[in-house]
Amino acid sequence: MNGSSGLSWRMIREAVTRISGRVNQTPVLTSETLNRLAGASLFFKCENFQKTGAFKARGATNAIFALSAEDANRGVVTHSSGNHAAAVARAATLRGVPSHIIMPDNSVAAKVESVKRYGGKVIFCSPTQAAREGETARIIAETGAVLVHAYDDLHVMAGQATTGTELLDEIEDLDIILCPVGGGGHLSGISVAAKTIKPSIKVFGVEPAGADDAARSFAKGEIIPSVNPQTIADGLRSSLGERPFREIQRDTDGIVTVSEDAIVMAMRQIWEIMKIIVEPSAAVAYAAILEEKLPVEGRKVGIVLTGGNLDLDKLPWA
Amino acid sequence: MNGSSGLSWRMIREAVTRISGRVNQTPVLTSETLNRLAGASLFFKCENFQKTGAFKARGATNAIFALSAEDANRGVVTHSSGNHAAAVARAATLRGVPSHIIMPDNSVAAKVESVKRYGGKVIFCSPTQAAREGETARIIAETGAVLVHAYDDLHVMAGQATTGTELLDEIEDLDIILCPVGGGGHLSGISVAAKTIKPSIKVFGVEPAGADDAARSFAKGEIIPSVNPQTIADGLRSSLGERPFREIQRDTDGIVTVSEDAIVMAMRQIWEIMKIIVEPSAAVAYAAILEEKLPVEGRKVGIVLTGGNLDLDKLPWA
Repeated sequence: MNGSSGLSWRMIREAVTRISGRVNQTPVLTSETLNRLAGASLFFKCENFQKTGAFKARGATNAIFALSAEDANRGVVTHSSGNHAAAVARAATLRGVPSHIIMPDNSVAAKVESVKRYGGKVIFCSPTQAAREGETARIIAETGAVLVHAYDDLHVMAGQATTGTELLDEIEDLDIILCPVGGGGHLSGISVAAKTIKPSIKVFGVEPAGADDAARSFAKGEIIPSVNPQTIADGLRSSLGERPFREIQRDTDGIVTVSEDAIVMAMRQIWEIMKIIVEPSAAVAYAAILEEKLPVEGRKVGIVLTGGNLDLDKLPWA
Repeated sequence: MNGSSGLSWRMIREAVTRISGRVNQTPVLTSETLNRLAGASLFFKCENFQKTGAFKARGATNAIFALSAEDANRGVVTHSSGNHAAAVARAATLRGVPSHIIMPDNSVAAKVESVKRYGGKVIFCSPTQAAREGETARIIAETGAVLVHAYDDLHVMAGQATTGTELLDEIEDLDIILCPVGGGGHLSGISVAAKTIKPSIKVFGVEPAGADDAARSFAKGEIIPSVNPQTIADGLRSSLGERPFREIQRDTDGIVTVSEDAIVMAMRQIWEIMKIIVEPSAAVAYAAILEEKLPVEGRKVGIVLTGGNLDLDKLPWA
């Protein structure tokens, strides 16, 4: 695949139109207290208030509504233990087509219930990458269902990019955007969108030091897979996808890493001071501010809060 | 004090102007999931996003900015272990006058720190009503400071009433408003405001069954003090104040009570589904929906979420 078949601004604009009314336009919140602590003006884009509780609704909705009627009617399939699973189930139900959601058999019960509530058909498999992919191939062979990958998919990336278009529509003069990076779908989409709208803006990915494949891949210029990632931020354990990586190499300004302590402290500060629920993966961008990983003094900084789904019985400070 | 010296619409309108720009205009949030569960359209007025994390900022700010320069310069005093303490400290600092905050010596450390951070001078006393009132009298005698009572004060009530004016400005066709009731300052203010703006609206107070002095007082037509209240909703343990009770008798349509289980379940649902932090006291209005204490089917219902301050190390479901 060459550069011309990457994520285009046209695809992003089409995604904005396609998902409008099907997902939430999320609020941008500010906090005088956090601004004072940071010495900067922080603008929190609240994807925890998105449908299904995470930004994943954007990409899944765009990808599923971009399918031809013929393709859509064969149904969709994905493998995910997390927020993408619920997003695909919801979007498929909204379009009126079946969804097959392959989940590891050690998935959190609440996440399985959520997928079922949104109308997804759950298929359990062993918790290995090989089992997930094998099961996906089997479903595709049996049903003809279309794969909606969690991040290595241009329509998914275009959908996630709309977090960036909305943020810059509302706060036009941002200097910097910080976004968590796992598979890279969200970061790549936001980077392309932001650089198109405002070429002078800086966009950084943030990831846990214990799952730093994106930082190492970015530094080396080739994908280094995530091996045995160790982090509380369960949404950021994936390896960087090929399609996202291509955009990140061109349009993202850097990747910084944060400690587990900073992630937990960031999450707690957001809960205590902003009174909103974010999951650990969603707190890493603000953790980079806490650890002073970037010079933000006096700047206007967009902080992407990616989601708010977690088990309230297992809080990281308990 | 006769009826003519009660809470007037003029005082409320003056409060709207006086506190404008000094406290937040808080958002009204909705949730399709909770609407589906309730069979009604719920509009959550989010005072957890208010300055100091609770509606108390409204009343304290109005009362302190209503003082003459001469009175204000003598400083202000209050006794509170909770949200009113921080609200008075913040409003006094905003006006540039000293505040003396009398707190029981078993107060939660975080609450004491909060008062100090807002610039209040903390004076500890024994955790009894007599000690609190004695210490208050001593401070007034020594300094001439003006008492800002947490709820039995017309300017405080007028300030709290602005939750109601804002809610009805935004959602004009509400059928019902549900508001937690402790000392009655908030409920009385909202009742007067709502009935003035829309006489056909119904306003109900909600309180824990284990602290049901307001329900009993309302039924009997005279104040029955709260004795040994047993509830997780620490903001609702106070006895109803005389001035609030007078307005509640006239303008509130009823008081319903909810169980402790319903309070905890309501709080957890708001956290999990709306992704926002509310304290136990703030969840009681929605708990009345969960326990089906009122007929709301198909109605537009305003739910007042009063605050979001609590110890994240001690969650009620832990």
